[in-house]
Amino acid sequence: MKRSPTPTRDTGANTPPIAVILAAGKGSRLEQIRNGTPKPALKLLGLSLAERTITTFSAAGIHRFFVVLGHEADQVRAHYQQIAARRHCDIEFVIAEDWKLGNGASALASAKKLDGTPFLLTMSDHLITPSLIERILLARPEQGEISLAVDRDKTGVFDVEDVTKVATSDDRVVGIGKSLEEWDAADTGVFFCTNALFDALRRAHKQEKYSLTDGVRNLAEAGKVNAVDVTGEEWIDVDTPEAFGEARRRLLASLTKGGQDGYVSQRLNRPLSTRLSAHLATTGITPNQITVISFLISLAGAGLLSVGMFATGVLGGLLVQAASVIDGCDGEIARLKHISSPRGAWLDTILDRYADMAVTLAVTFAYAAVHPGPLPWIIGFLAAFGFILASYVTKEFGIRMGEPYPNDVLNRLKRRDLRVFIICLGAVVGRPFEALTIAGALTHLCVIGVLIKGWKRSASPGR
Amino acid sequence: MKRSPTPTRDTGANTPPIAVILAAGKGSRLEQIRNGTPKPALKLLGLSLAERTITTFSAAGIHRFFVVLGHEADQVRAHYQQIAARRHCDIEFVIAEDWKLGNGASALASAKKLDGTPFLLTMSDHLITPSLIERILLARPEQGEISLAVDRDKTGVFDVEDVTKVATSDDRVVGIGKSLEEWDAADTGVFFCTNALFDALRRAHKQEKYSLTDGVRNLAEAGKVNAVDVTGEEWIDVDTPEAFGEARRRLLASLTKGGQDGYVSQRLNRPLSTRLSAHLATTGITPNQITVISFLISLAGAGLLSVGMFATGVLGGLLVQAASVIDGCDGEIARLKHISSPRGAWLDTILDRYADMAVTLAVTFAYAAVHPGPLPWIIGFLAAFGFILASYVTKEFGIRMGEPYPNDVLNRLKRRDLRVFIICLGAVVGRPFEALTIAGALTHLCVIGVLIKGWKRSASPGR
Repeated sequence: MKRSPTPTRDTGANTPPIAVILAAGKGSRLEQIRNGTPKPALKLLGLSLAERTITTFSAAGIHRFFVVLGHEADQVRAHYQQIAARRHCDIEFVIAEDWKLGNGASALASAKKLDGTPFLLTMSDHLITPSLIERILLARPEQGEISLAVDRDKTGVFDVEDVTKVATSDDRVVGIGKSLEEWDAADTGVFFCTNALFDALRRAHKQEKYSLTDGVRNLAEAGKVNAVDVTGEEWIDVDTPEAFGEARRRLLASLTKGGQDGYVSQRLNRPLSTRLSAHLATTGITPNQITVISFLISLAGAGLLSVGMFATGVLGGLLVQAASVIDGCDGEIARLKHISSPRGAWLDTILDRYADMAVTLAVTFAYAAVHPGPLPWIIGFLAAFGFILASYVTKEFGIRMGEPYPNDVLNRLKRRDLRVFIICLGAVVGRPFEALTIAGALTHLCVIGVLIKGWKRSASPGR
Repeated sequence: MKRSPTPTRDTGANTPPIAVILAAGKGSRLEQIRNGTPKPALKLLGLSLAERTITTFSAAGIHRFFVVLGHEADQVRAHYQQIAARRHCDIEFVIAEDWKLGNGASALASAKKLDGTPFLLTMSDHLITPSLIERILLARPEQGEISLAVDRDKTGVFDVEDVTKVATSDDRVVGIGKSLEEWDAADTGVFFCTNALFDALRRAHKQEKYSLTDGVRNLAEAGKVNAVDVTGEEWIDVDTPEAFGEARRRLLASLTKGGQDGYVSQRLNRPLSTRLSAHLATTGITPNQITVISFLISLAGAGLLSVGMFATGVLGGLLVQAASVIDGCDGEIARLKHISSPRGAWLDTILDRYADMAVTLAVTFAYAAVHPGPLPWIIGFLAAFGFILASYVTKEFGIRMGEPYPNDVLNRLKRRDLRVFIICLGAVVGRPFEALTIAGALTHLCVIGVLIKGWKRSASPGR
């Protein structure tokens, strides 16, 4: 029979638990890339491992932390204090005097700070997701027990040699250790604990066993460890240069996910912008600065396109396309550094509209200068109207229908990445206005498609 | 000590109760305006009293009804059956054989249909609001008691002579009747009842008292009637020609409420459109038909404006302004007839954008025809961009900030009603393009104001 870790809803179950973060170890295996920086302060794509952990927990609603210090305690404390100020969270510290014995000894040092209510436990060098935390939060342990987040997908585990292996029976951990032969899940390093953990660690200490795993094994043998399945969540233990590289690769890969990109963005802009973002993330440049720079490049491109000569047109078209690539970096860096904000999204969306207008006006102006009569202007006018209407209708759809417009073919064909690319191609072959006409016509057709879809979707009686 | 009507949360408290509607009476006092139509089928601004009651309850989440029939039972039943089909609700009927005795006898006829769980009770000729119903739903009566929605604002009561008066002590009804001398609240005619009402009605019947009020008085004397304060909600008992006129007046007045109108809309368009809607509501024209007609009038106006002559310009400007007035009627009629829909809002918003583009293009075209060079086109281009951006930024604000942009001065100055009016005025004095320029500049300034407001509003750390 399956025993579920019954979520108790009595004392304090509604206030989020404190998270204890073990940051006492030396991280010797990362020495070659640390260059003297303490491991928690080691930056991965512009954000230290410590700050990644804190912001991940914040995103899951956890804002109070106890950080266990050991190796280079003063430097690590100072680093976490900066994070606390920057991220508006509450971080207290505890020194693990005998951290050298093992991470069980470090964990035990936090016992005196805790008041007996269940707490989360993790390591400063484990990168996880907010939803992994949300999943273990649902498995609040009973008194005398602890919960451990495990990943049952063995094929997805990085560095199978080094991972702590877990053997489970239904939802109970029955064995744990790096050298376990029979195992069916990996230890993600995220726990939801009661004081039972400390009792178990003390028992292990008496046998001169000082790792966290020794304590957990002690409880597992008594059937007191819930295995909480978090399969499908991204997590990685960053304790070797290889794991560091893998973590970097996964973070960059995550930027292209989401399925909201257009055709050109997916195949051209995004591959280029993520490479650029990987470099820009390590600088001090902010996402909003990138948004503004991209906008200024668009304006410069528009200025060149307005001249009406072939060479300036080519350069202008390329600049506008370059700006479209760079325009992807603001959001990417915001996500890489966990600093996404409504302000950034607001600025980005609005400046994109102004950039579209500037480019359309410039291309039309240049063409109308040598083609008198109202026709070029009417076409340019309609194209500009179509471009902004394209953004407008999907927003309006979301507001009226209560769900976002899907990223279907119509949506992709009217996205900004494609129209900018078409205009750039046109400029390169000396036909920017013709390209604008095509982009405008395509956009209007797609808008009409969205309108029809909205009309059908909103069918309702009585009207 | 204050005794609150404790909302019991035991049996069936989560399924919405059935509403019993008394529709058995003759409505003799309305005879002169009924012209032979049964009272519940009497249309008020395009929607019968019966349908107004049903849709109001539907809006409050009540979709099951028992209608008590008496006078002209077959005709009234047929009318309610049409409503049930049109509004997708479940209406059953019960005949009150002795309805002529009084509305207490009618109410008692429903007893056999009810299974003992609490039910709502109202009259087919009482116009109320969904929120009044939501308020009494919170006051589920205990066994042996009933709840009565009362209005404590005596000055707001229409026809104080005729209203059923209520005397309360704290939240208990202690006296009820039309001729009560000392009273502090008015009976709105909406009850949340248990079977206790039927017992009380039977007791009253034995004393040959047959009105609903007689039964309620019987319970009130035993301290079994909760007075549920619904002060502030609109309600009216439509039983005289004067009350009918007042109900009509209030419904029309409600169309101008909401505070979301622009300056021109508030003072010119809305007063005109509500008068027009009052007539249109009684015809079979649908809101979507009005939306399309208004759009076609805008297009005709644009066509005339594009000619570039003074006389056609004046006519075009007036047509565009007339379309702007008529454009208010679609939403008004939808609200008057309780047929608002996402589809209607979707169509209206999108066609407004196309109408704006047509008018801007027409005015620019006419001016550019006699003023060569790119400047007129650039101005027209920027104006059109500003007009759609004006709608775009407030939608975007709502999406990014999680709350709608307020109807502040910036918003009112960039609303469509004002720009259409400015262009109409310009056309009337022979200067439509200059007016377009002013409207465009004003709109861009307001958009910039909204952008700054959004920027400040979205201030957040880290970015």
